Amino acid sequence: MSDLHERARELDAADPLAGHRAEFALDEGTVYLDGNSLGALPAHVPARMADVIGREWGELRIRSWDESGWWTAPERIGDRIAPLVGAAPGRIVVGDSTSVNVFKAVVAATRLAGEGRDEILVDATTFPTDGYIAESAARMTGHRIVPLDPADIPGAAGPRTALALVNHVDYRTGRLHDLPGTTAALRAAGALAVWDLCHSAGALPVGLDAHGVDLAVGCTYKYLNGGPGSPAYLYVAERHQAAFDSPLPGWNSHADPFGMTPGYRAADGAVRGRVGTPDILSTLALEAALDVWDGVDVNAVRAKSLALTDFFLECVRAYVPEGRVVSVTPEAHAERGSQVALSCPDAAAVMPELIARGVVGDLRRPDVLRFGFTPLYVGFADTERAARVLADVLAAAS
Amino acid sequence: MSDLHERARELDAADPLAGHRAEFALDEGTVYLDGNSLGALPAHVPARMADVIGREWGELRIRSWDESGWWTAPERIGDRIAPLVGAAPGRIVVGDSTSVNVFKAVVAATRLAGEGRDEILVDATTFPTDGYIAESAARMTGHRIVPLDPADIPGAAGPRTALALVNHVDYRTGRLHDLPGTTAALRAAGALAVWDLCHSAGALPVGLDAHGVDLAVGCTYKYLNGGPGSPAYLYVAERHQAAFDSPLPGWNSHADPFGMTPGYRAADGAVRGRVGTPDILSTLALEAALDVWDGVDVNAVRAKSLALTDFFLECVRAYVPEGRVVSVTPEAHAERGSQVALSCPDAAAVMPELIARGVVGDLRRPDVLRFGFTPLYVGFADTERAARVLADVLAAAS
Repeated sequence: MSDLHERARELDAADPLAGHRAEFALDEGTVYLDGNSLGALPAHVPARMADVIGREWGELRIRSWDESGWWTAPERIGDRIAPLVGAAPGRIVVGDSTSVNVFKAVVAATRLAGEGRDEILVDATTFPTDGYIAESAARMTGHRIVPLDPADIPGAAGPRTALALVNHVDYRTGRLHDLPGTTAALRAAGALAVWDLCHSAGALPVGLDAHGVDLAVGCTYKYLNGGPGSPAYLYVAERHQAAFDSPLPGWNSHADPFGMTPGYRAADGAVRGRVGTPDILSTLALEAALDVWDGVDVNAVRAKSLALTDFFLECVRAYVPEGRVVSVTPEAHAERGSQVALSCPDAAAVMPELIARGVVGDLRRPDVLRFGFTPLYVGFADTERAARVLADVLAAAS
Repeated sequence: MSDLHERARELDAADPLAGHRAEFALDEGTVYLDGNSLGALPAHVPARMADVIGREWGELRIRSWDESGWWTAPERIGDRIAPLVGAAPGRIVVGDSTSVNVFKAVVAATRLAGEGRDEILVDATTFPTDGYIAESAARMTGHRIVPLDPADIPGAAGPRTALALVNHVDYRTGRLHDLPGTTAALRAAGALAVWDLCHSAGALPVGLDAHGVDLAVGCTYKYLNGGPGSPAYLYVAERHQAAFDSPLPGWNSHADPFGMTPGYRAADGAVRGRVGTPDILSTLALEAALDVWDGVDVNAVRAKSLALTDFFLECVRAYVPEGRVVSVTPEAHAERGSQVALSCPDAAAVMPELIARGVVGDLRRPDVLRFGFTPLYVGFADTERAARVLADVLAAAS
């Protein structure tokens, strides 16, 4: 045990990202491994929000739509997220929930795919909301849903496929799916690739432009630390922007929103993905939160993420008797996101006890203990401690 | 001029709502008549939000979904709004933008109306986003849009009418439409009434349950003072709740959201109108803002609102030469919301000058000066001053 403890100290000392932890509000008593559900608070956000609320809303009031840049926040913040997911400026807009953006993306993709393509392939292991929304979109557009294992999507794409909706990283297992290969296979079949980046953005390079992704959505409250329920985003590849036809053409996406004309005329660019008035407090908290990414290389984040999850798995193997838990997260780096999911029959009893001892992960019913590793604020000593506490809790519960 | 000034002082002294002004962050140098666009900041909100951000997000983090009541906020806050619009508990849920809620309501109404009804009547004078979204909903459900003057909707409703989407108060003119009569006519024709309450909720009694309204939506950042882009709400009459079929069935509306099952099964009640993860910071600012309504009778608000707009029109008549501006807001109380809209050819030059002199209204292009009266914080002396400054500006611009 002390070997791994010592190793952790050395790894932390050599970690080029270690300094970022101080940018977050974290207490030493807690190992927070639930940043894949709700990212920790960047320490400078409260002061920024006090100014947004007290001065921008309280003193400037309506003038802030112009003077404080509220009106253009969705596209401005989209441009801040863009480099983290490999997109050029002007391709991402922030706003609404992930579910609402899935609806926009799926319906718009069926329209971009054109006539004669009546199938929507859906990641059968997806976070459920994507499936529910895709089903609703299919019902309204006259398409048929085909649920598939993501690995089978490239082979299943054909002349009837309009699009596939796939998660980049599975929320439950942490499995990283093959975005470049799947996207290429869909394109070869004449279909569109719609990716959900909720569990990858901010944890690993995505390369939306480079890999030719058509549309993508993601949330901002996990690895991007935007705050509870902070707005999601929508990516539209440049080649699709002129034909992007939103099912939610609210006034914020109008070419002349303050003309308030009865006829709808879509704005150019990513702005076309906007709908109604943005939730400014949540939106500006996200904008402030993104400051922690200034100067951070996503490749360095990925390297540390893999080192952390490797080390966690090594510590678990060392501390927990074989067979007591089973990792459902792939060993291969190419197939692993930034979390480790361990299954055990008594997971529902184990997780509260872990949390009571300061190791915060979460439970995915019925039997999965989920541990997310946010490289900007989780260290190797945290990781070793989490495995040690897990071993203690599992031993006590046996 | 001094007579009206004196009258204003007397009216303020006799105003039973005058004490509420102190609950808002307002400066004496400004007469804020734009609360029909963005309500003023309730003075206690910054401290509440500092706690939400610093403690609930920063310290409790993920635990706040349960322990701080984040998860149930949309329906809890819906129940706070309910008495202001005449709804029983359990019929309103907060979340998403007004535009997104219009989409939910219009699509769901076409489904509730059933087969054979292929027309959607739309208030032709509506705030444009309602029309854009209704058009999109109609395109997706195979309905036809019929734009009409709201006064003509009762007569136009017939066996082909699925629903009518109408604004309770016109955003531009401030005209109050006949909600009870229009709703009754639609019901008699077997059609549904969907009301947009953005410009009425918090300014006058609505009586959703009493008048048999089917569905309604509204924003919360105008007379409800929820903050910039605070979440909108959706009302579903009790008789429609079991059959309410949302086009945006996100995981938050699932009967067992944390079961994360692949099949969608809708929750009972207003919760069925939820979609994705709510924007907690904006949502909880709204919740705090609603405290100013504790113990306030909406009928008293309405009485003061009419007294304020009557007094403003009287002052304008006294101070501004006849014909210099023309009121496009109805004189009759039964047809007036809580704003006065004055048209003049040079409105676009007049409004910035008014704002520079501390009278904040807004411009609706091309020629409308819009002044909103929020009875909780606008007084009669404010009103007299606004008319006086308006007269000065108009005289200087002539």
